[in-house]
Amino acid sequence: MRQVAIYGKGGIGKSTTTQNTVAALAESGKKVMVVGCDPKADSTRLLLHGLNQKTVLDTLRDEGDDIELESILKTGFGETRCVESGGPEPGVGCAGRGIITSINMLEQLGAYTDDLDYVFYDVLGDVVCGGFAMPIREGKAREIYIVASGELMALYAANNIAKGIKKYAETGGVRLGGIICNSRKADNEYALVKAVAEEIGTQMIHFVPRDNIVQRAEINKMTVIDFDPAANQANEYRKLAKAIDENQMFVVPKPMTQDRLEELMMKHGFLDAV
Amino acid sequence: MRQVAIYGKGGIGKSTTTQNTVAALAESGKKVMVVGCDPKADSTRLLLHGLNQKTVLDTLRDEGDDIELESILKTGFGETRCVESGGPEPGVGCAGRGIITSINMLEQLGAYTDDLDYVFYDVLGDVVCGGFAMPIREGKAREIYIVASGELMALYAANNIAKGIKKYAETGGVRLGGIICNSRKADNEYALVKAVAEEIGTQMIHFVPRDNIVQRAEINKMTVIDFDPAANQANEYRKLAKAIDENQMFVVPKPMTQDRLEELMMKHGFLDAV
Repeated sequence: MRQVAIYGKGGIGKSTTTQNTVAALAESGKKVMVVGCDPKADSTRLLLHGLNQKTVLDTLRDEGDDIELESILKTGFGETRCVESGGPEPGVGCAGRGIITSINMLEQLGAYTDDLDYVFYDVLGDVVCGGFAMPIREGKAREIYIVASGELMALYAANNIAKGIKKYAETGGVRLGGIICNSRKADNEYALVKAVAEEIGTQMIHFVPRDNIVQRAEINKMTVIDFDPAANQANEYRKLAKAIDENQMFVVPKPMTQDRLEELMMKHGFLDAV
Repeated sequence: MRQVAIYGKGGIGKSTTTQNTVAALAESGKKVMVVGCDPKADSTRLLLHGLNQKTVLDTLRDEGDDIELESILKTGFGETRCVESGGPEPGVGCAGRGIITSINMLEQLGAYTDDLDYVFYDVLGDVVCGGFAMPIREGKAREIYIVASGELMALYAANNIAKGIKKYAETGGVRLGGIICNSRKADNEYALVKAVAEEIGTQMIHFVPRDNIVQRAEINKMTVIDFDPAANQANEYRKLAKAIDENQMFVVPKPMTQDRLEELMMKHGFLDAV
């Protein structure tokens, strides 16, 4: 069972990318569980065709500790198993601790069955605080992918996430598997993201082009794989899924300084307009 | 001195909107301090023409407690005073606690001078955890604006933020001043965001249209006010700044249920395609 965490700047398309990748893996016969680690609980919406999942933390709050696996794990597209950890009451408590509570509950209830090929953790934010680093701190996810685009702040966040991974790679066994470029159609984006990935010591595992069909599918509460399996974009996600499935490159990342990141951006035609 | 915090979903354009609004206020003669509360430290980049600000937390780590105000407060566009609180080492510690450390340090060093008309806090994320609620929990910011667009997850986050504000409005004095719509050109966006704002008991204080000049200005590390003061978009930010400056509507928000939010979206032509 491979346990994979997806990180990236807020708004970068982590949940969309994760669910489309998971749908492609499921379509190819893999057994996958998705654990949403975002208090917004939107990590399984496209697989489940709606935000109709009660979160683990809400279930614990409402029903106490004595809960059934069926009440927190729903079956989505392609027999994917979908869980949303949920969050603390807004504005109170640590969201990261909630994630660990949820994962522990899943373990207790026997959700990590031997037939699973993958568990994906879709994690909010930029690993900026210890809370959201929980899935890698606690040795749950062993393999990380970072979603980024060619925009400065997305790459800045990616580099920061690499710092967090490095920290826990040294003590635990977590490794970076690659950067997924979710294109924003920034100029020179392919070359820039590839250069950043290589500088960090990893690879750009796939370049996902921008295509409005992703948004159309989302409005319909579906992945592209589900909404229009014949679309070009569905093939892009299949390629990404295959690249992850066949990935052999797992590294301890070498994060850059901020100056070096800006230098790379300048080299690729960014930030030099002033 | 009005102390204002700006919240909103990751990637929604909080920092851009905040800096453009602050630039417009500064242009009109207001004295403004901006305190970036995002560990990415990008809340003052457009005012300072680059990410060249050493953060409070980095300064404390490098130089100890005995620091000068000048080493953490830089002067940006229109005499704005710019501070970045910074974050903990990536993946370790609580980012919210770092924010309070920074604010306390600013207080000690006398940064909150009487001549200031405004202090703006630009806060990462969705107030999902207690950490990022710090500026409102500790009674620093008294007045909140939420940046949102007509997209489901942006409105979901806005509603969640309203829950966090309500919590601290009851014990402290914090109030919601309005929702700023940062348009993504979603269909029916104006009517939808206005309806959501009214349902929450607040107002859509301004609808900022989407205009690529914002991105062009950003690549040049400037606000639109600075980059092209005659542009239409500069006037939009001036209108927003004026609306905030003249705002009289400060409420304890009434957050919705998720079902009600989806109902409102359906009424405005979203989510009904399945």
